[in-house]
Amino acid sequence: MSSTFGTVFRVTTFGESHGRGVGAVVDGCPPRLALAETDIQPQLDRRRPGQSGLSTPREESDKVSILSGVENGLTLGTPIGLFVPNRDQQPGDYAAMSRIPRPSHADWTYQVKYGIRASSGGGRSSARETIGRVAAGAIAEKLLKQHFGVEIVAWVSAVGAVEAPDLAGREITRPDVDAHAVRCPDAEAAQRMEAAIRQAREARDSTGGVITAICRGVPAGWGEPVFDKLEARLAQAMLSIPATKGFEIGSGFAGSRMLGSEHNDPFVMRKGRLGTATNRSGGVQGGISNGEPIVFRVAFKPPATIGKAQATVDFEGHAVELEATGRHDPCVVPRAVPIVEAMAALVLADAALAQCARS
Amino acid sequence: MSSTFGTVFRVTTFGESHGRGVGAVVDGCPPRLALAETDIQPQLDRRRPGQSGLSTPREESDKVSILSGVENGLTLGTPIGLFVPNRDQQPGDYAAMSRIPRPSHADWTYQVKYGIRASSGGGRSSARETIGRVAAGAIAEKLLKQHFGVEIVAWVSAVGAVEAPDLAGREITRPDVDAHAVRCPDAEAAQRMEAAIRQAREARDSTGGVITAICRGVPAGWGEPVFDKLEARLAQAMLSIPATKGFEIGSGFAGSRMLGSEHNDPFVMRKGRLGTATNRSGGVQGGISNGEPIVFRVAFKPPATIGKAQATVDFEGHAVELEATGRHDPCVVPRAVPIVEAMAALVLADAALAQCARS
Amino acid sequence: MSSTFGTVFRVTTFGESHGRGVGAVVDGCPPRLALAETDIQPQLDRRRPGQSGLSTPREESDKVSILSGVENGLTLGTPIGLFVPNRDQQPGDYAAMSRIPRPSHADWTYQVKYGIRASSGGGRSSARETIGRVAAGAIAEKLLKQHFGVEIVAWVSAVGAVEAPDLAGREITRPDVDAHAVRCPDAEAAQRMEAAIRQAREARDSTGGVITAICRGVPAGWGEPVFDKLEARLAQAMLSIPATKGFEIGSGFAGSRMLGSEHNDPFVMRKGRLGTATNRSGGVQGGISNGEPIVFRVAFKPPATIGKAQATVDFEGHAVELEATGRHDPCVVPRAVPIVEAMAALVLADAALAQCARS
Amino acid sequence: MSSTFGTVFRVTTFGESHGRGVGAVVDGCPPRLALAETDIQPQLDRRRPGQSGLSTPREESDKVSILSGVENGLTLGTPIGLFVPNRDQQPGDYAAMSRIPRPSHADWTYQVKYGIRASSGGGRSSARETIGRVAAGAIAEKLLKQHFGVEIVAWVSAVGAVEAPDLAGREITRPDVDAHAVRCPDAEAAQRMEAAIRQAREARDSTGGVITAICRGVPAGWGEPVFDKLEARLAQAMLSIPATKGFEIGSGFAGSRMLGSEHNDPFVMRKGRLGTATNRSGGVQGGISNGEPIVFRVAFKPPATIGKAQATVDFEGHAVELEATGRHDPCVVPRAVPIVEAMAALVLADAALAQCARS
Repeated sequence: MSSTFGTVFRVTTFGESHGRGVGAVVDGCPPRLALAETDIQPQLDRRRPGQSGLSTPREESDKVSILSGVENGLTLGTPIGLFVPNRDQQPGDYAAMSRIPRPSHADWTYQVKYGIRASSGGGRSSARETIGRVAAGAIAEKLLKQHFGVEIVAWVSAVGAVEAPDLAGREITRPDVDAHAVRCPDAEAAQRMEAAIRQAREARDSTGGVITAICRGVPAGWGEPVFDKLEARLAQAMLSIPATKGFEIGSGFAGSRMLGSEHNDPFVMRKGRLGTATNRSGGVQGGISNGEPIVFRVAFKPPATIGKAQATVDFEGHAVELEATGRHDPCVVPRAVPIVEAMAALVLADAALAQCARS
Repeated sequence: MSSTFGTVFRVTTFGESHGRGVGAVVDGCPPRLALAETDIQPQLDRRRPGQSGLSTPREESDKVSILSGVENGLTLGTPIGLFVPNRDQQPGDYAAMSRIPRPSHADWTYQVKYGIRASSGGGRSSARETIGRVAAGAIAEKLLKQHFGVEIVAWVSAVGAVEAPDLAGREITRPDVDAHAVRCPDAEAAQRMEAAIRQAREARDSTGGVITAICRGVPAGWGEPVFDKLEARLAQAMLSIPATKGFEIGSGFAGSRMLGSEHNDPFVMRKGRLGTATNRSGGVQGGISNGEPIVFRVAFKPPATIGKAQATVDFEGHAVELEATGRHDPCVVPRAVPIVEAMAALVLADAALAQCARS
Repeated sequence: MSSTFGTVFRVTTFGESHGRGVGAVVDGCPPRLALAETDIQPQLDRRRPGQSGLSTPREESDKVSILSGVENGLTLGTPIGLFVPNRDQQPGDYAAMSRIPRPSHADWTYQVKYGIRASSGGGRSSARETIGRVAAGAIAEKLLKQHFGVEIVAWVSAVGAVEAPDLAGREITRPDVDAHAVRCPDAEAAQRMEAAIRQAREARDSTGGVITAICRGVPAGWGEPVFDKLEARLAQAMLSIPATKGFEIGSGFAGSRMLGSEHNDPFVMRKGRLGTATNRSGGVQGGISNGEPIVFRVAFKPPATIGKAQATVDFEGHAVELEATGRHDPCVVPRAVPIVEAMAALVLADAALAQCARS
Repeated sequence: MSSTFGTVFRVTTFGESHGRGVGAVVDGCPPRLALAETDIQPQLDRRRPGQSGLSTPREESDKVSILSGVENGLTLGTPIGLFVPNRDQQPGDYAAMSRIPRPSHADWTYQVKYGIRASSGGGRSSARETIGRVAAGAIAEKLLKQHFGVEIVAWVSAVGAVEAPDLAGREITRPDVDAHAVRCPDAEAAQRMEAAIRQAREARDSTGGVITAICRGVPAGWGEPVFDKLEARLAQAMLSIPATKGFEIGSGFAGSRMLGSEHNDPFVMRKGRLGTATNRSGGVQGGISNGEPIVFRVAFKPPATIGKAQATVDFEGHAVELEATGRHDPCVVPRAVPIVEAMAALVLADAALAQCARS
């Protein structure tokens, strides 16, 4: 099921970085949801490279077309086909790399797995593959908002060693996030993050980072024990994003250093129903949402493709020095914000409809 | 698909903590694999509580029976039914908890999700549910070892604030791990961990921890881009284990603080084929194994059920003080070691057979 | 997914004819459904051989146990484990057959596919495998009846060349069906069918037959276009039953000989909503139920295991004459009635819950 | 999983009759298979209406584009996106039908299921939906031919009451089939079938028919007991094709009238391995291919949309007389031949790769 995600709300993506285009098919979206390309385009625009001096200057317009499943502005309940044509293909950029597998990139593993690989760029391992997810995720988000009142916001909480203060308690909005090119809503941290990215670019190097996401308004009861626990599906979703190395929900690794008496979230009455006084659980208990905000963090490694010279070997094993040419992002986390939001939306939409199937 | 895991090598588990028993059905296991209960029992014994003063003294014999799929000591290629009867049921222990949802436990979310819950113990959210996984995982492990030469070892790398030194480079074996009750192969750290657990018990409190796992001998080429990337399935698998809050592969969150030039794993020739000089990738690139050891870490929160008094509210919202009675583990990580190994084995066996389906 | 059926209401079966037992795991059954072994046993009893002189005299008590998922007589929403131990194993009966693959039986194909096969009886290809389905189907039936008012009745409409009159228009009930050992509700036809079966037994031969089923009370709107059309899933379900060779819905093959003006079912107003004046569609249009009774027929070949001498070859290719010893059913259709009902129930329960996931 | 078919070789289709186009995504196709649009177009051309006076004169060019998954003429192992734009949209043709649900058509059931339906034509229930299947099936066929030597041929064996003689024993080829517009390889029967279709058209009526298919070269061992038996998946696949009402494999319904001694296929030695002297099993035993040709038949009802006046009611229940305008096929079976072949190929490719996953 490699390119399909979800059981009830199901997404199948397709497309390489340098073929005709990329896209997705969304099956299981309920009928009669108001939907147009304009619901999807904003998140694609946020994902697009070249939005600021912070990311690669490639111009990708990434205009999405809805191919099916929508008529007169309403979903029909049938599969929604989505497509974004590729442009700006410069295979020449990748000539050197066809002989030399990039360290910590998927060039070599794709070659070994399939006995073939896209001749240029990363093919299916390219960040461009995420376009289909972001487009599908925008549909999931609209469904979640309209039918369930759920809202998802993610932001950059660290770039390299620069960390933003804890913002999970503030009611961060997407405009707050987009107020700074680096997509950290804290102005002071944003400034330092941007400096760190600029520094990496100047050194022809790259830098990693962390994204924090919060999902508000998720009712208690979503998530399917035991293998499709909400946190388990979120973890799969996040680790399926290129360049991710870690996932934490709620207290995360820090929680492993706490005592139970410090970690437990006591129940309280709130607006006539049970809530928790604290949220170290991150909005889930036993794999099921508990009505509190779902909060998680995703670690991204620094991009593998760097201009700085690297001593490595080519496909035949000969020692070479590799200096990637072309335009490459020194830091992907600002652009990865809508990808994290999209994957969270896909997980939640599937969980929401699965719970409907129970009653 | 809540209680089913895997696409080709598929496991379905069933059973609550206090019903007739727990079990699993393994479908897709190749035929003609030598298999007997004795291949499965050792991991169940390692999972069992009451192995030492460090965990709950409940005596659970947990003897597994193979119900189907094996004849004359060989698998038939048909579904393998596995069953472990429950014993030692003392529903009385849980009387108080039937009115009061335990903070940070699944009592409340199960009730909200299903409108009903097991009257005693955690039902399906209990650690006892993991018996089916461990039994199924032992079969996956045998397949991986016999057909592919893969070996999986996990150990406790932290208990609360006590951390073991980095052992990923040492050839840790299961006997090394089991040399100490706390299942940390480093003697000095083990001693301090055991002290930390004893201290938590004496305070009627609980403590979290971290498990590190390594999978050796995985050939390059396993893992299905894009949603079933090896790290994505491992992340789902690990976060589906009760009490987990985080997952890291390779460099993990620390990798997000590195520069690309520091983080990249340069290729080298090794035994006639490409390997990497370092392993910050943790054995995967682009979701596909690269032939290096797969290394990951899993964070466990402190157990929610503690004897220490907690101020909380009951199901009706009345303020109460809860002191859990009965016998409860102050720290689950020593017992969770075989669970982590089992889930890793399930992921790898599925990925291995999926790759066979490609050629 | 060989031993799992369904997407939302999912059943996984396990067990061979001569191992410890057979069973099933039902996942996705809604919580708070009243359920006990007594809801399941009657259909197992109807499936059991030896109920009359018409089928094999083997005494199989086939007592089902619910292993999990039910507490205090209510489903918990968690997987329901079901188990029926095997008894009366006489492997000796099958000694001759271990060297000689039975013509038109699965002995040879299992051996080729798996490189191994159950040493006696049919293993997983045995009719005994259907016990898990019947048990699971009984749960699906209860859900369908309680939550949706659906009723399923099947009967024997042909044995060999003896055909019952068309009974789809009559309100046949299960007591009507069980009034005759052959499970044909038409007394005159039943008598002739029983004679045909006796004749086959006396000749140490076997005979085929046809089962007709009707599902009443299915609301319009169930069935998932395009690959999970209701008739498509019914067809898969029925052809997965051992010894089946054909499936027809509504007009079936006879419909292919009609003109559109003869075949179309005109709409009419009935009880304030649209119905159809005729039901050549068999209750489905475009893969979706239309509120009319769902009517289908299933063809069963004569059982392959016969006492009559057959000229064939052994596994090594040497010409032999095979005379099956032991006790074998000369006609399976009377016992297959509850199996057809069970599979129909599994299809409908899954379709019902899938439709719930849409709203 | 409504619009996805297959477990290992998986196809997801999308698209309505009157949107931007129709297409499919094929996931799980092995890498390094030579593939181009020219491998796919011929089957689309055979499916296209307007090929002869026998079917609707709508001009649909149906040119397929491969959107992804192929580079330099070889598959990459990544999802293969396929798209065929829609043309010739004349929604006006369907104006009358927007108020009146066509008898025995899916207009009404789609409306009830989804609370909305495509405003013109059949939307997703249209025959046009099958384009995605045919395109995907052509890829499956190429894989089956190149990797396994499998060949699939289907033909029209009946139109209304006109039946072709039994041709399963002759080595029918696609050119034989296409020698006559009606796609029956028997010249004399073809002539009478064409007369029957012309007669139906002149009467503004429609006629049904039967397609027979044979799959040659399938090795013994394909098919996954118990729910994914080869015949079960074929039955699902065939009954998922619009307008189908029945499926038979091998002896089919006629087999239900035979004695076991007449029906059993004795084993014989053939070319050093076991074969069967007869093939009443239709190439499968116990759900697994036995190395003999797989032979099955599919019944198609007469198309629902006819020009002849029909007394029915509109969506509000008012009595009306419906005379469909526009151009409609009086008989779909000639065009359905490549659809049957495509669906058979999808089933076999999935079964082939599933069996690879076992070894």
